Amino acid sequence: MHLDVAVAKTRKYATPESGDTIEMIERPGGGLSFVVVDGQRSGKSAKAVSNIVARKAVALLAEGIRDGAAARAAHDYLYTQRAGKVSATLNIVSVDLESRTLVLSRNNHCPAIVSLNGKIEIFDEPSQPVGVQRGTKPVIHELPLAPGTTVVIFTDGLTGAGERKGQPLNVPELVRELIGRQLTAEALAQTLLNEALTADDQRPADDISILVLAVSALNRSDDTRWLKVSMPL
Amino acid sequence: MHLDVAVAKTRKYATPESGDTIEMIERPGGGLSFVVVDGQRSGKSAKAVSNIVARKAVALLAEGIRDGAAARAAHDYLYTQRAGKVSATLNIVSVDLESRTLVLSRNNHCPAIVSLNGKIEIFDEPSQPVGVQRGTKPVIHELPLAPGTTVVIFTDGLTGAGERKGQPLNVPELVRELIGRQLTAEALAQTLLNEALTADDQRPADDISILVLAVSALNRSDDTRWLKVSMPL
Repeated sequence: MHLDVAVAKTRKYATPESGDTIEMIERPGGGLSFVVVDGQRSGKSAKAVSNIVARKAVALLAEGIRDGAAARAAHDYLYTQRAGKVSATLNIVSVDLESRTLVLSRNNHCPAIVSLNGKIEIFDEPSQPVGVQRGTKPVIHELPLAPGTTVVIFTDGLTGAGERKGQPLNVPELVRELIGRQLTAEALAQTLLNEALTADDQRPADDISILVLAVSALNRSDDTRWLKVSMPL
Repeated sequence: MHLDVAVAKTRKYATPESGDTIEMIERPGGGLSFVVVDGQRSGKSAKAVSNIVARKAVALLAEGIRDGAAARAAHDYLYTQRAGKVSATLNIVSVDLESRTLVLSRNNHCPAIVSLNGKIEIFDEPSQPVGVQRGTKPVIHELPLAPGTTVVIFTDGLTGAGERKGQPLNVPELVRELIGRQLTAEALAQTLLNEALTADDQRPADDISILVLAVSALNRSDDTRWLKVSMPL
């Protein structure tokens, strides 16, 4: 099997900085975790909040702490630091090579979308953001690490794209259509982003982050892992 | 300006796991840091060591602690945990958007190679690995964040490739030649890795990690940051 992950992150038009933070960390038992955080509001204050939450979550995951506990701790930490007054959404997506599962942990009103061999499932159970309500827990789904699985996670800048014009993107519908085209993880993320930018006339009304994770049956001849980063300076 | 980073990591032939750990973390003041650690020996024990060192370094960098202090702390931590008996090499490469500099911190006998508009500099001052000698410090170079800059960092699996056959790779010479070809960061890393695999008859004698960072004058129309991961499962 082979894993491909693509993460795209762009910022609200005319703000100096995205309020979203995305971090990746290796799991000490094997595998990777991705943490996607959208801090309340936008710009510098949002970035400070999302940084606190992401940092706490990755520090714990790096020590081998399970995803549910890391999400709870990230909530408690933000809640304590900011006296329950500031919220953030938090998604943790883990490829756990110990349990051979995908673990999706969600503190976000945006759904997580999973496709298994073209069949789409929308995980949209009620879910609280972290930081504001005592005792907040994540909604967790654990799936077998199986070829043909695609996971799409995003912040609400994607679902909100086009709202200004009264034509918000229907993200689940769009993903359903794109999954049929058998795109790579990168092409899928790029297409979703392009649709959002078009809906917002190339001036995003909010920070947008998109994570696409694809597990394929591909067996490459070599064992090399790759990490690639591209960003404007 | 635009930043492209490519990291390739492969493991010693017939070992279950690479002893190298590479992590990336966002700097709270803006920018990114990459941490490349090669734990002593190979396999599971090496991985445990490199994980300890990388985890400590990224946790501190994520809190805004300067690179030199993070490297010293990672050393002290390993030295204390393992009573000075286990070593690891540690490279930290930072794109610091506060100071608009590239910071190269090196606790590794392998050189760091920097090209500025085709002119190559080899940073190969004597440098101690972390973990074994009390008070170990990194060798640090700070360079302006300028277009036309390429940084190549690697673990000793690259320089050691071909040694089994008495024909070790001359990595600085190879980089000098490849820089002339104006490759992308990814193509440069891929070519270096291919040369190493060829020198080792496709059976790497050691874990190999390569990080290539390129700053170009390119100005893309959009502000999107990309992170891509590819790994066999």
